[in-house]
Amino acid sequence: METYEYDKRKCPTHASGEQCAKLLFPVKDALDVLSGKWKLQIILSLSFGKKRFKQIQREIPGLTPKVLSKELKDLEMNELVERHVYDTLPVSIEYELTNYGTTIKPLLGELHKWGSKHRKRIIARNGRKN
Amino acid sequence: METYEYDKRKCPTHASGEQCAKLLFPVKDALDVLSGKWKLQIILSLSFGKKRFKQIQREIPGLTPKVLSKELKDLEMNELVERHVYDTLPVSIEYELTNYGTTIKPLLGELHKWGSKHRKRIIARNGRKN
Repeated sequence: METYEYDKRKCPTHASGEQCAKLLFPVKDALDVLSGKWKLQIILSLSFGKKRFKQIQREIPGLTPKVLSKELKDLEMNELVERHVYDTLPVSIEYELTNYGTTIKPLLGELHKWGSKHRKRIIARNGRKN
Repeated sequence: METYEYDKRKCPTHASGEQCAKLLFPVKDALDVLSGKWKLQIILSLSFGKKRFKQIQREIPGLTPKVLSKELKDLEMNELVERHVYDTLPVSIEYELTNYGTTIKPLLGELHKWGSKHRKRIIARNGRKN
């Protein structure tokens, strides 16, 4: 637990705000690109292979086409996702994680692990209440 | 890279939407609790020790008192953060991660690691452009 990079330097209770703010920079950077309800879910969906727009949409309940289209554009802009247009009739389009996009997999693994524990905890808690 | 829990089951390109949606549940659960720009930054700030409201606020640029107050309440509700009120004059209040809150540290470690790489990449790319 204590081996993560951000633990090497310290941000103790009485450190100055500035000292600590610097420590938060990389986390803030990551969140700027990945935060929101959808981006990580889209990346997870694409981590299993190329997909068409409709396929991604079907897998993520509550995600509207308008929002998915915007999120995919953001992800393309950040070079995490690539859009392939195939010369078929009608033209077919697929989305794929870039090599850079696949570097998010370990983060998704942790998110999935924590989410699984959290889900069990919530279910157990609600079970006690009923 | 292929050892994460979510990779054990597969969600291939032509799997049904429902099959894949189930795979996304834990990630969705985690995002429900942690998504947004601030919560993970607040948890990271508290991962170094108990802090007062003002201290947290100073460390996270752009975070207003109103939003911090709301975020702390959400985190308390999800049992990730505890609020301690001390019988001093004036009353002093500190926020601390619960044991459950500390289970997010590995996730924060990954976020920090990825954010550091992303930061380097952006700086290198902008350097090439100038």
